[in-house]
Amino acid sequence: MNVGGRSMRTIWLEPDGWSVGVIDQTALPHRLVTARLTTLAEAAHAIRAMVIRGAPLIGATAAYGLCLALREDASDEGLERAYATLIAARPTAINLKWALDEIMAVVRNRSRTERPAAAYRRAAEICDEDVAINTGIGRSGLPLIEAVAAKKKPGERVNVLTHCNAGWLAAVDVGPATAAIYMAHDKGVPVHVFADETRPRNQGASLTTWELGQHGVPHTLIADNTGGHLMQHGMVDLVIVGTDRVTANGDVCNKIGTYLKALAARDNNVPFYVALPSPTIDFTLADGVADIPIEQRNAEEVATMRGRTADGRIETVQIAPAGTPVVNYGFDVTPARLVTGLITERGVIAASRAALARAFPERAGAAQ
Amino acid sequence: MNVGGRSMRTIWLEPDGWSVGVIDQTALPHRLVTARLTTLAEAAHAIRAMVIRGAPLIGATAAYGLCLALREDASDEGLERAYATLIAARPTAINLKWALDEIMAVVRNRSRTERPAAAYRRAAEICDEDVAINTGIGRSGLPLIEAVAAKKKPGERVNVLTHCNAGWLAAVDVGPATAAIYMAHDKGVPVHVFADETRPRNQGASLTTWELGQHGVPHTLIADNTGGHLMQHGMVDLVIVGTDRVTANGDVCNKIGTYLKALAARDNNVPFYVALPSPTIDFTLADGVADIPIEQRNAEEVATMRGRTADGRIETVQIAPAGTPVVNYGFDVTPARLVTGLITERGVIAASRAALARAFPERAGAAQ
Repeated sequence: MNVGGRSMRTIWLEPDGWSVGVIDQTALPHRLVTARLTTLAEAAHAIRAMVIRGAPLIGATAAYGLCLALREDASDEGLERAYATLIAARPTAINLKWALDEIMAVVRNRSRTERPAAAYRRAAEICDEDVAINTGIGRSGLPLIEAVAAKKKPGERVNVLTHCNAGWLAAVDVGPATAAIYMAHDKGVPVHVFADETRPRNQGASLTTWELGQHGVPHTLIADNTGGHLMQHGMVDLVIVGTDRVTANGDVCNKIGTYLKALAARDNNVPFYVALPSPTIDFTLADGVADIPIEQRNAEEVATMRGRTADGRIETVQIAPAGTPVVNYGFDVTPARLVTGLITERGVIAASRAALARAFPERAGAAQ
Repeated sequence: MNVGGRSMRTIWLEPDGWSVGVIDQTALPHRLVTARLTTLAEAAHAIRAMVIRGAPLIGATAAYGLCLALREDASDEGLERAYATLIAARPTAINLKWALDEIMAVVRNRSRTERPAAAYRRAAEICDEDVAINTGIGRSGLPLIEAVAAKKKPGERVNVLTHCNAGWLAAVDVGPATAAIYMAHDKGVPVHVFADETRPRNQGASLTTWELGQHGVPHTLIADNTGGHLMQHGMVDLVIVGTDRVTANGDVCNKIGTYLKALAARDNNVPFYVALPSPTIDFTLADGVADIPIEQRNAEEVATMRGRTADGRIETVQIAPAGTPVVNYGFDVTPARLVTGLITERGVIAASRAALARAFPERAGAAQ
């Protein structure tokens, strides 16, 4: 998407043809900093330290991490070591393992000299495939926004509420939850986004606002507590969020707090959509609330806040009494009954076992 | 309640018999600082700058502010000027006007020399009456906690979730939403509180955690996004929140985000109680969502966060891109249909027009 008027991805091959550029997301939203990854160690660090984040982008970075490793050591042993290093960088990220396995598949049966070029080709494809999937999601979701716009009076905007960041900063480009929004905006549909702050890590306040602002999409930052009030007063036309995992039943695991917005949407007859690349569907699980383990993260994320001081320093401040007990669940599960539809690259699908099996028969069948 | 093992109120007459001590809540939770108010100007500043906050405490401080003003100038003109100064300090606080009118009523028909002593007597009564009302609320709410405790296995705790701070720091002592919790704890009932952070002003993270911690009540700080997940997994036995205004229908206006917790409570069959001194009921309004104007506060509260750095400085940090548009509603309205009961000094009352009129016939009748 656009940054300062220039088209940009979150990850790219540098002009030297081998080193890898990424946006350093730890510096956002205060400064646009890019990092150049030249070694396996640097790629692993970028994943571990959340220089890059978001499931698809983690996958793409891991793929290029294997490419960089192959330049250093293209032996079978080197490859296995690199694989182990990268997979340990964010052990719960499903896309990471998938992307590494994709690279392994194209290099395993080649000679050492052929391996690097084959790996780079597949890594570039992985990036392009991610963009294609998200573009497909955008095409599926665009009519939902256009249908609301068609009912608006001249000068009125379509108001979309989103939670966390499932935007292009979480992907290679476009982003699942934002794809239809960017498409609508680029077509001249007047769309406006309410971005939930998304405590405790503030991905909404720091990343969603930044990416929408850079691309020129009108938006407003709100505290996570605000969405219910907005929906009660007709200020939200639809909710679109991303997801980390959808079960075969259509239950949606996403950033903590998503469930509360889904409840408010239902209570006020606001459509609640979840945008996702179809690999996010886990056909091996049924009941999301019972079956999806929810990661507990460290207390510091809740007890502190990081930002920029008036004189430009980045500081972390403590907001609770020292030693306050904290519990910090990273995700929650929104039951399928609260989900209006799943926006996928194959269209908008009901959040039900039957509809998901019909839309993805090859995957639903394989999981039986 | 207890602070560092010593019983304390939020406001008190100093040993000199005329100056007024308060806890400076702007320094919490990082340091316990008290302030001594000696003039009208200092009292007005304490209200305006939120050195003290919470409707009952604002009222008590305003009452003492008039006392201090009378020491300087006990003339009718001086009194009117002081009244105008204090009422302008927080124009929307209903208790502030009520407390000032109470003092005016006892001094108006007295000589200048008699006025200060009469005002101080009434100010002290206002404080004691607030403690008595909150103690009454505690007596009403205690059986709700005890009933849950009676069903627990040995070693299990009663888990109460609360939002914002309607604790003793918002009152003179005890606090409405916390009264029953402190009483249960002091009686040996094992009670544990989940305290919502309460963005954007963090009253939960900074004040509720501090006051519970000082009194020794077990508690856990959570992001505002977390309550739904906890309720889905049976980790909350009941919700108790405060309120700024309850309509004749039983609709509840409280800190933004309360409505989302009420929705989650209903979705998971968790009882949702609102604790309030009965003067908070506004019998002149019916439909809370339609009729209660919701204050919009400044963008900085959302775009920034204030806290303590590792080396002990208090800093404000920006968390969103500079210039990000923000909307900051201070309150929301929870419809009566989501409220299990109103905990008042006259008992636990259904959130309905009939029940409220039955419990407070003298006030319901006067508002016809």
